[in-house]
Amino acid sequence: MVKDDLLMIPGPVKLHERIIKAMSSQMISHRSRDFEEVFEYCKNAIKPLFGTSGDIAIISGSGTAGMEAAVASFSKVRKITVVDNGKFGERFAKIGAKYTEVDHLRFEWGNSIDLEKVEESLANGSEAIAFVHNETSTGILNPASEIARIARKYNALVIMDGITSVGGDEVKMDEWEIDVAVVGSQKCIGAPPGLAAVAINERAWEFYSESVPYYLDLKAYVKKAESNQTPYTPAVPLFLAFAEALRIIEEEGIENRVERHRKFARATRVWAESAGLELFPALNEHSSYSNTVTAIKMPDGVADKDLRGTLREEYGITISGGQEHLKGKIFRIGHMGNVTKRDLVATLSAIEDILSRKNVVKPALHAAMEELG
Amino acid sequence: MVKDDLLMIPGPVKLHERIIKAMSSQMISHRSRDFEEVFEYCKNAIKPLFGTSGDIAIISGSGTAGMEAAVASFSKVRKITVVDNGKFGERFAKIGAKYTEVDHLRFEWGNSIDLEKVEESLANGSEAIAFVHNETSTGILNPASEIARIARKYNALVIMDGITSVGGDEVKMDEWEIDVAVVGSQKCIGAPPGLAAVAINERAWEFYSESVPYYLDLKAYVKKAESNQTPYTPAVPLFLAFAEALRIIEEEGIENRVERHRKFARATRVWAESAGLELFPALNEHSSYSNTVTAIKMPDGVADKDLRGTLREEYGITISGGQEHLKGKIFRIGHMGNVTKRDLVATLSAIEDILSRKNVVKPALHAAMEELG
Repeated sequence: MVKDDLLMIPGPVKLHERIIKAMSSQMISHRSRDFEEVFEYCKNAIKPLFGTSGDIAIISGSGTAGMEAAVASFSKVRKITVVDNGKFGERFAKIGAKYTEVDHLRFEWGNSIDLEKVEESLANGSEAIAFVHNETSTGILNPASEIARIARKYNALVIMDGITSVGGDEVKMDEWEIDVAVVGSQKCIGAPPGLAAVAINERAWEFYSESVPYYLDLKAYVKKAESNQTPYTPAVPLFLAFAEALRIIEEEGIENRVERHRKFARATRVWAESAGLELFPALNEHSSYSNTVTAIKMPDGVADKDLRGTLREEYGITISGGQEHLKGKIFRIGHMGNVTKRDLVATLSAIEDILSRKNVVKPALHAAMEELG
Repeated sequence: MVKDDLLMIPGPVKLHERIIKAMSSQMISHRSRDFEEVFEYCKNAIKPLFGTSGDIAIISGSGTAGMEAAVASFSKVRKITVVDNGKFGERFAKIGAKYTEVDHLRFEWGNSIDLEKVEESLANGSEAIAFVHNETSTGILNPASEIARIARKYNALVIMDGITSVGGDEVKMDEWEIDVAVVGSQKCIGAPPGLAAVAINERAWEFYSESVPYYLDLKAYVKKAESNQTPYTPAVPLFLAFAEALRIIEEEGIENRVERHRKFARATRVWAESAGLELFPALNEHSSYSNTVTAIKMPDGVADKDLRGTLREEYGITISGGQEHLKGKIFRIGHMGNVTKRDLVATLSAIEDILSRKNVVKPALHAAMEELG
């Protein structure tokens, strides 16, 4: 069979042809006017996705570099509260511990967070809070505006990992009073991996610490960004791709894009439930299902490789499994970025086909199609 | 005029068509067997360029990320000697100061280093030394094997920035007893910017420090590299390009490639001197001219924009100026990576043409051509 694969994981996502083309060009100098124009466009076009008019830093590195730059640059705090209900929350705690004392609020992976515990921690001397907006490891959307509201009562700095929400779901940094937020290029924005953008509001600078690593010092990035440059040689092809991805978003319109992501997520959930599958997250009134990735419990008697292996071999579709202790227990469908209705329907059909052979699902595609409209 | 530019700066360098093509592909999962094969090839193919059989870490980030990862990961030292005779030596000192005490050995930019001062510093309690092999800011090749030999007498860890030498000039880490060395993707290797590879020999691990930044922890990279993965999402398109660049190097043969770089450098120097221009570096018996970039003093009465601006506008060729206090005082021609004889002759011709109009050079192209053979 001709190899023609489709990525349906929660990032990296499939690339739109235009983005591949934008990246496929001869090298230009990173100190040229041509590059500065690309940078300037990226810097400005990304602000509405964060919902901010603040500063923007763009780091050549993965989302984790962005998370660490955010925590380390603004680590002039005696203690930071880290909300952890998934793999990336846990990562924030590990990063935080490198720079200050961490009050590590652990919730079971896949469970909602408890806002009372968050408030308790902040009342107990934390001067900052870090949390993951959209936790791809479990398919949960954490209550960003409510966390920020509580933090504001205690005058704490708010750092948000928006790596898999910015550009696909609603993010309103300024309105919600989030001080620092991070996004990765390869998620909802739909570009290749390798860039992390950090948005920084004025108030964050009060927490700036000189003890930040040299490469991750956001002050250096923001200062250079004034003249549309980067402090260290940028990954030029990734900036060209990033700019094209942002142009596509501008054309779609961010509100339409958020609506599309939400509709795809609803259709996936409706399909799963109609098929007799069980969604993984256990939610309270404050949390919701992710709009960019859906985590579903693996049906009894189905091994990870039966589903994901067959899906890849037979259909050329890659979805994700569970991470760490969730390995084999859940599967995750990414529906973020420039994924189409066609891609989603193909993925759900293929999964339904494979699981039907095991007699663990009922026909449910029409329910999904109805939701997709 | 049709826009068709040629980059002749000391990185990023022009991309070979094959490298552009390799990068121009649909996204693949970073946890797929396909990616692991690409990673494995890169990991193995780069070792001969470093002249090592040690561990390899590949970071998604610029060369500076690699420099900081090297210094921070192996910072279990009371004091580090940093050799500084150019912009990147200075950067090493700034990075070093974030992790330990620095004995900052400053030499005038463009001057050779003084090995007696190096020995004095090591005798004075430094447990490590960091230096730049090929200093692109000034066009000097520092004496790597001699620095390492002195360091070995004092049992000091040796960290080398080989960002603009590895893959273009001779580097023999194991033979010279260099413990840690760094290379950037966009220099002699000829790939786009955005990856830094670090080679690590066994002895370096004695100096491993837990206080390394999370994103720059080389232990995490080396551990994941055992299964041909990366600890954080890699910049996939840059790995595809990097692998193709390494294939091109394998086809040329590293010895031939080093010889080509040396010949291009000699031709550039012969041309400059025959033209009546003056090379910038002031050398002693231990240092040499760089084989990957040539720094030339700007002739009296010629402004930077007269030369570099006209070159860009009229010929579509970009060369570099001087950095910081050398701005307007020197110009630098990069002849690294997959640059051809044709590119070099075009560049020297164009510069000669422009400077002739100012009556500051004599015809010298034939001298260069003779050297090129």
